[in-house]
Amino acid sequence: MSVPEYKQLRRSYGFDEVAIVPGDVTINPDQTNIELKVDSFTCSIPIIASAMDAVTDVNFAILMSKMGGVAVLNLEGVQTRYDDPGEVLADIARASNAEATPLLQKVYSQPIKESLIAERIQAIKKAGATCAVSVAPANAKRFAPIVAEAGADIFVVQSTVTSARHISKSYRGLSFSELRQLVGIPIIVGNCVSYTACLELARTGVSGVLVGVGPGAACTSREVLGIGVPQITATMDCAAARDQYLAESGRYVPVITDGGFRKGGDLCKAFAAGADAVMLGSIFAQAKEAPGLGYHWGMANPHPVLPRGTRIKVGTAGTLEQILYGPTSVTDGSQNLVGALRTAMGICGAFNVAEMHKAEMVFAPAITTEGKSWQLMRA
Amino acid sequence: MSVPEYKQLRRSYGFDEVAIVPGDVTINPDQTNIELKVDSFTCSIPIIASAMDAVTDVNFAILMSKMGGVAVLNLEGVQTRYDDPGEVLADIARASNAEATPLLQKVYSQPIKESLIAERIQAIKKAGATCAVSVAPANAKRFAPIVAEAGADIFVVQSTVTSARHISKSYRGLSFSELRQLVGIPIIVGNCVSYTACLELARTGVSGVLVGVGPGAACTSREVLGIGVPQITATMDCAAARDQYLAESGRYVPVITDGGFRKGGDLCKAFAAGADAVMLGSIFAQAKEAPGLGYHWGMANPHPVLPRGTRIKVGTAGTLEQILYGPTSVTDGSQNLVGALRTAMGICGAFNVAEMHKAEMVFAPAITTEGKSWQLMRA
Amino acid sequence: MSVPEYKQLRRSYGFDEVAIVPGDVTINPDQTNIELKVDSFTCSIPIIASAMDAVTDVNFAILMSKMGGVAVLNLEGVQTRYDDPGEVLADIARASNAEATPLLQKVYSQPIKESLIAERIQAIKKAGATCAVSVAPANAKRFAPIVAEAGADIFVVQSTVTSARHISKSYRGLSFSELRQLVGIPIIVGNCVSYTACLELARTGVSGVLVGVGPGAACTSREVLGIGVPQITATMDCAAARDQYLAESGRYVPVITDGGFRKGGDLCKAFAAGADAVMLGSIFAQAKEAPGLGYHWGMANPHPVLPRGTRIKVGTAGTLEQILYGPTSVTDGSQNLVGALRTAMGICGAFNVAEMHKAEMVFAPAITTEGKSWQLMRA
Amino acid sequence: MSVPEYKQLRRSYGFDEVAIVPGDVTINPDQTNIELKVDSFTCSIPIIASAMDAVTDVNFAILMSKMGGVAVLNLEGVQTRYDDPGEVLADIARASNAEATPLLQKVYSQPIKESLIAERIQAIKKAGATCAVSVAPANAKRFAPIVAEAGADIFVVQSTVTSARHISKSYRGLSFSELRQLVGIPIIVGNCVSYTACLELARTGVSGVLVGVGPGAACTSREVLGIGVPQITATMDCAAARDQYLAESGRYVPVITDGGFRKGGDLCKAFAAGADAVMLGSIFAQAKEAPGLGYHWGMANPHPVLPRGTRIKVGTAGTLEQILYGPTSVTDGSQNLVGALRTAMGICGAFNVAEMHKAEMVFAPAITTEGKSWQLMRA
Repeated sequence: MSVPEYKQLRRSYGFDEVAIVPGDVTINPDQTNIELKVDSFTCSIPIIASAMDAVTDVNFAILMSKMGGVAVLNLEGVQTRYDDPGEVLADIARASNAEATPLLQKVYSQPIKESLIAERIQAIKKAGATCAVSVAPANAKRFAPIVAEAGADIFVVQSTVTSARHISKSYRGLSFSELRQLVGIPIIVGNCVSYTACLELARTGVSGVLVGVGPGAACTSREVLGIGVPQITATMDCAAARDQYLAESGRYVPVITDGGFRKGGDLCKAFAAGADAVMLGSIFAQAKEAPGLGYHWGMANPHPVLPRGTRIKVGTAGTLEQILYGPTSVTDGSQNLVGALRTAMGICGAFNVAEMHKAEMVFAPAITTEGKSWQLMRA
Repeated sequence: MSVPEYKQLRRSYGFDEVAIVPGDVTINPDQTNIELKVDSFTCSIPIIASAMDAVTDVNFAILMSKMGGVAVLNLEGVQTRYDDPGEVLADIARASNAEATPLLQKVYSQPIKESLIAERIQAIKKAGATCAVSVAPANAKRFAPIVAEAGADIFVVQSTVTSARHISKSYRGLSFSELRQLVGIPIIVGNCVSYTACLELARTGVSGVLVGVGPGAACTSREVLGIGVPQITATMDCAAARDQYLAESGRYVPVITDGGFRKGGDLCKAFAAGADAVMLGSIFAQAKEAPGLGYHWGMANPHPVLPRGTRIKVGTAGTLEQILYGPTSVTDGSQNLVGALRTAMGICGAFNVAEMHKAEMVFAPAITTEGKSWQLMRA
Repeated sequence: MSVPEYKQLRRSYGFDEVAIVPGDVTINPDQTNIELKVDSFTCSIPIIASAMDAVTDVNFAILMSKMGGVAVLNLEGVQTRYDDPGEVLADIARASNAEATPLLQKVYSQPIKESLIAERIQAIKKAGATCAVSVAPANAKRFAPIVAEAGADIFVVQSTVTSARHISKSYRGLSFSELRQLVGIPIIVGNCVSYTACLELARTGVSGVLVGVGPGAACTSREVLGIGVPQITATMDCAAARDQYLAESGRYVPVITDGGFRKGGDLCKAFAAGADAVMLGSIFAQAKEAPGLGYHWGMANPHPVLPRGTRIKVGTAGTLEQILYGPTSVTDGSQNLVGALRTAMGICGAFNVAEMHKAEMVFAPAITTEGKSWQLMRA
Repeated sequence: MSVPEYKQLRRSYGFDEVAIVPGDVTINPDQTNIELKVDSFTCSIPIIASAMDAVTDVNFAILMSKMGGVAVLNLEGVQTRYDDPGEVLADIARASNAEATPLLQKVYSQPIKESLIAERIQAIKKAGATCAVSVAPANAKRFAPIVAEAGADIFVVQSTVTSARHISKSYRGLSFSELRQLVGIPIIVGNCVSYTACLELARTGVSGVLVGVGPGAACTSREVLGIGVPQITATMDCAAARDQYLAESGRYVPVITDGGFRKGGDLCKAFAAGADAVMLGSIFAQAKEAPGLGYHWGMANPHPVLPRGTRIKVGTAGTLEQILYGPTSVTDGSQNLVGALRTAMGICGAFNVAEMHKAEMVFAPAITTEGKSWQLMRA
């Protein structure tokens, strides 16, 4: 007797399960163009630093902007809760593993000071840098005027999962089209992982979409909630939504893959899967200039009742410049990310990111072990 | 030359291989309703504590009932073999790993005292709590009158594998429809893992079906017998049987996924796979109030000739209240299970369990490693 | 551009990747019949001990026969090269890991004494036991008359891979039909792993076929040669050949799955995959009565130029009786194999092995980890 | 709503995921012919030593030639940058793990001395040995006349990924047909991994194609760039291209699988996947006669800005003769590679490499664990 199918489970793919196939034509890496455009905004490299307290503070945002990228300041973290966030960050770094989550719960229970929002934005702008800031959907309408007035360049509205249609008793569902009008600057919204969710977000008029639920190194949403889609499939599905929306509207809404990256190869795969940009947390938390002092934690970690995340020790690997551009003697792909992307694009014959989207990929779980078990065999 | 197919092997899925896809609509967790109905019986959360000696005793059953759930007392364990089961449980906790199985074999070779059956049930009822009890099929008819008279609310008939058609030389095959008449209270029967077995059980008139063969942490049936189906597929197939039976009879027989859970995410996935409730062993054995004193063992372990199970150390993680409702500083999903379920339902836009059954899932083996290898990389 | 398919790779399955689905009808284990028939020969349990020097000597063969099974004596091992094989076996057990393979190469370079062949066979027969012996194809014709005259019951012709059509410069291809006539006792031949190879062997008139290339714990053929098929697929394909041959000839040639077993569950799965019997090496090498003294090695290990195998320490786990019938306090499925098989058959509603062939199986890689990661989580 | 497919991901396979199925006919290993022909060049075994500094120097090339194979001397490594490369190699072997990559970056920043190119080639030729040399595409035209005049037998043009159509600002795309005319000796080009890339290379008139991007033990291109195809699929696809080109041109361009081999079984699988020859690095770096002194590193490792590779300790396992021909007491398949290949071909009934291409293979991920977990179980 055949069993009726209760539910279809589509195969989905993560970074480690795929590999990029070289192109039939190859080009020199220096001939590639990797510019990112989000609405009216442009930057020279398609790499964004996460809105996480261990990654982005005012100084890091300024530095990242100088290097051609952009870093997002979280307006609901320590930067807007404390006049001197550096002290708090040092406390977190000093806490033992057992103390970390209770301490984070306490640290993030302090109220946000609205005055600090404008102060932080202006500090970044005063240095001539691009200023991107993020808030959760529930605070978006309240903080929008402050953000706009302070002169931010990009407004990110971000939570673990954000949909175009949220139903709540406590606040009226956020309309992204209203919000876009209100702030007058590009709005990036997320995170989502599916074709329909991404398509619906694009249709609200947002400028960019963040892709990824729970893949990050400092996030445990997948263990706690069982929710998520591996990043290669999430990126491909949302890229399909972007293309569908482009076809129906003529407007291009970039897809930004957020989270789960550990090395240059992951980043190259995201672009081959359809990403227009990538957002990195843990990798940047390793920079000498990162505010986390060698530690990293997720923004869902401090939840008072259902914490989802973990403070991890990432260490300090090099300067931001080395991480982005090298030179380096590190051979595991965690440094010179821009060089890795340009080299991979050269090997795929891709002059720009749009052409990199056409690179062939294979499902290749063997790729992570082939040849690499040598050390194990001889150990 | 092509090879004739001797046997078709359908792909089956376990908790770690799937992930839930967020909905296109999201709702606030506090708007979800997670009530469970089994026949005339209702409880406010769809979480049941296993009929295992390390999990449920009289006190635990009373506490679980107060928290909105239900715990099942095993009528063939230490509670009905010993006047003072606490002493025996302490012995088991003190045994070395090598001594554990021989000791359990000895402990469970003592006869069941029928007088203790009524005594335990009445102790639970006297406290105003829901009383659920379990027996193996071979003892079901004998104990049924005692159970009914003592005032139990739910009668569970459970063995490793229970079918509607058992052939035995030593006792006449048990008729669940007769049994249902005999006791006059809801009957939950199991365990089964397949569409046809579940459908046949439903057709006998039982009130609910337990799903899962051998997935539990304290069970080794899969190693010893090679028998079992991973819990996501087992749940989906039995949910299909439930829906088929509903269509043909108009009666709804809830499917209760039993065993193999380690964290909130697993529990959320079971509901997305079609479960109406879950039965937890190891997780509750970790409660401060659990009778196992930080240890847990399967009820097939003490088999005198072919033991299948192992005593495992689960430790003590928190109070039952914390495990069910938080608050917690544990971020691995093993506490605040109700919060996790409501949050996941919110992310899927599910107002109730029936709507959660419609959540999309993907086959996502990468989900367990993506981003999580960071610690390993840096270790 | 689509890629032409150079070669099709069929999915194949090993023990750990599949699981047996319980039947819709269940029966009591004591109602099962597990008799094995090979031609005119019958034994009460379908379990055969390997023709390996660490497993079968004269005493073990006698004991195994008393317990209802049969053990195969290797006529090209230490038993026929040494008057006192016990001494040599003790030397092997005393060797360090580094010394083991060179020592085995030396031990097996001694010539076979034909006089010892008859002596060993007669010692087994004198005890009233079933006597099965094995030789490699190259020696089969030479030893056949000695074996027949000495009164052996079963003649096994075995090498890593045996085909019905072997081309050699050094000896004329062995004709199994001639050989069958020559010895006048049942001939079991192997090993093979494919449908066509098994079908061709059956058509030569052999009495039984051994299935399995390289799966054994003490064999490294797969590493050295890249050759093999996982045991579930090998068994299913050869079972299909057996059924095809039965349909065309009316003669039933049992399929004996040989190697790769670690626990009762594997054994049960082999029968569900179509096996009529199983041949065990490592598990029996653990018996108190095994000649290997807690060690085990493959018969391809001592090859002077291309050794394929490794001496492994298996330890001593219990008596042969415990391994076959229990009782036991071991819960990992390595003891009471007969009890495990009967219990699994009961759960599948199979009264005999032929009915067990019809049991449903699923492809279930999750089965080996579900619930079992608990210990790891808490470690 | 169904999701539009953004990109198709074909399943690809690595060595560990496949296994060779024995043939229906078997032959004796001594009846196999494993000769390799590349254009006018012939050698008696189809095994080539990599153009890596830890593997091939003048002495190793001479020895390899005497044993019937061929070793490729890298003309852009230490042999042509240093008058006394032995000193430099000893420095590399003495460096700590942390010092290795910076030291390699320094060592390889020294200029190539063109005079040493002719000197090394002539030293090999003077010994009566086959001389094969390699250069990167960028240097191919410049070094070609020197190589041809010095009397080399085979000219290898090799980089991580080489395509027939490379676009560069700094040098005019290399035309392999021109190059072939210029040198007048067989040209082997690579590496590539796809059907179309291989077909295009064959069509330029090259004599052989190297297959494999990033599989080697000393290479981290896959981590750094995300690029590569597992070796079994890469070999099958390029073998399909070879056959297509043969059909359209009548010319046979051998496919040489390069990298990722750890044992004889991998090598046998490459031939069953369609390879005409294999190129080995790490395995030969273990030879007593290898210049790497027990270490091995990739040629992309010393890249000054984006190093991709790692120096690994391979140790010293035996003489080159033992590695190729045995005899050995090593049972893991890392020695007597020729014996392993001939034995596997015998089991597949393949008289020559072309017949070995027809051997059946299965997708068998279980093959690497079946039976092998015994040691783990008992450890």
